Amino acid sequence: MVDGALRAVRTDPALHLLLVGPIEVADELIGALDPAQRARVTVRPVRTAVGMADHPTAARGESTVRTAVQAVRDGLADAVVSAGSTGATVTAAALGLGRWTGIRRPALAATLPAVEGPVVLLDVGGTLEPGPATLARHALLGAAYASVAHAVTAPRVGLLSVGLETGKGDRLRRTAAPALAAAPLPCDGRYVGLVEGYDISLGARADVVVTDGFTGNVLLKAIEGAYAMAGGPPSRGGAPRAAALLGVGGTVVVCHGAAGSEDLASGIALAAHLWRRDAAGTVRALLDDIPHDFAPDRHDTEVAP
Amino acid sequence: MVDGALRAVRTDPALHLLLVGPIEVADELIGALDPAQRARVTVRPVRTAVGMADHPTAARGESTVRTAVQAVRDGLADAVVSAGSTGATVTAAALGLGRWTGIRRPALAATLPAVEGPVVLLDVGGTLEPGPATLARHALLGAAYASVAHAVTAPRVGLLSVGLETGKGDRLRRTAAPALAAAPLPCDGRYVGLVEGYDISLGARADVVVTDGFTGNVLLKAIEGAYAMAGGPPSRGGAPRAAALLGVGGTVVVCHGAAGSEDLASGIALAAHLWRRDAAGTVRALLDDIPHDFAPDRHDTEVAP
Repeated sequence: MVDGALRAVRTDPALHLLLVGPIEVADELIGALDPAQRARVTVRPVRTAVGMADHPTAARGESTVRTAVQAVRDGLADAVVSAGSTGATVTAAALGLGRWTGIRRPALAATLPAVEGPVVLLDVGGTLEPGPATLARHALLGAAYASVAHAVTAPRVGLLSVGLETGKGDRLRRTAAPALAAAPLPCDGRYVGLVEGYDISLGARADVVVTDGFTGNVLLKAIEGAYAMAGGPPSRGGAPRAAALLGVGGTVVVCHGAAGSEDLASGIALAAHLWRRDAAGTVRALLDDIPHDFAPDRHDTEVAP
Repeated sequence: MVDGALRAVRTDPALHLLLVGPIEVADELIGALDPAQRARVTVRPVRTAVGMADHPTAARGESTVRTAVQAVRDGLADAVVSAGSTGATVTAAALGLGRWTGIRRPALAATLPAVEGPVVLLDVGGTLEPGPATLARHALLGAAYASVAHAVTAPRVGLLSVGLETGKGDRLRRTAAPALAAAPLPCDGRYVGLVEGYDISLGARADVVVTDGFTGNVLLKAIEGAYAMAGGPPSRGGAPRAAALLGVGGTVVVCHGAAGSEDLASGIALAAHLWRRDAAGTVRALLDDIPHDFAPDRHDTEVAP
């Protein structure tokens, strides 16, 4: 944490950090900074953190992640970056910053540096069990995010499945495919149908790949493992270890639970990039232009029958 | 197909092929063989094949895959290798060869050459929507298969999820974890708990990774895509493009739908390896020693509520 925060402060001269956590960690960081730079770091001492094994709703109590979210809500910070429990961060952000109209289930979007340009993979762990209507909403989020955050024009949106042919997949995919085909995608986005696992790394078929948060999470880690096996990630970059939380009222970035200093620094850089572009506000405004009832989401609490 | 079959015949002098398909494809293959070798190839002309976009039950009619399965049932061949529709092959094999007692849903097992020895990933597409009891049965199949086919001693069996901590995952994983923990694993296998995406490539935590067929299939293809991005698979081998179908009464290997000649030859070699070890019979016998009612499977037709 200390090394990652130091790296971020040194890389980005316009960055200010509000550190939420144990005071001794903050002291270590401030002690390592050039005295002239110390005014760029503020500390909010909080001792209780939600552990990886805790239930996400533990974030309802006083905790580092909840305090960080409240700082954004109160205007004391512009963005939250957390490498803690994903579930706790999603819960704290949804409760503390609110969700956008029409978005009941936020999505974590990870951007992979594919051969043919960036691929936005969502969800990578925000919503583990979406229904088809949630996947359709995530398609809207992904198309808008690819355009706003990564300047992808007319994003091609695909639904991840086990084959390209219509009808391939489990029930969730079979019911979601028509919902995605009917989704009014923003930014001249278009639905390109089913895509496969290769397409996440190669990017030939789609700029945005939609899947449930369980599959997206294990996939991202499998790709990371494959790069480690192959002797390191490709030159244009490996699997990201930071992802943007879309659908909540603020800029929130979730880093990998095992993030190293470089991962944390790139998560902070992502948060700064998104905030400077007002990505959250712009994506939200793009979605506000779309009728919220384009796909009923009453089945969203479970895999549709 | 022709190149793959030729490669297999030339590599393995003890191999005999029964080709089931259009006669002109068979003629091309036989024409390319040394005349002294032609007796090693027999042809069963069948014109109708189940297409990738067809429903798997199309295999109930006269088709290449059904004819190939019948040849095994009738003792005219020892194993089936198909690069056609996975669903059609699974359906034809289950109907034509029968399923083992206690195995309602067959599993496709793929073996990845991980850093610390082979990792058996199952299911990679045999059963897209298993319940927890099916995952527990697949854990038994995987442990026995790792031992019999790959000589793994005391296989460590993990359940793929989004984190290592108990309780991580969607409802299927949360209900399956106790079922796997209670499963009487053969071959001194032991359940090691939840594992993550990395573990499939690295193999540090588990020798057998259990997941649903949807997730396993997209994962395997994502790993293949990542190796392509990284400039090629690692020296010990990439993602396999052939998998063994476990739980049906015979040796059945399913190759990737986009298998090239090398993939097809390695699928044929896998089938020969499994048949020579009597892997199907040995795995089945190992499971016959286990009470079939160790986990109720009445919820197996859907994700458990």
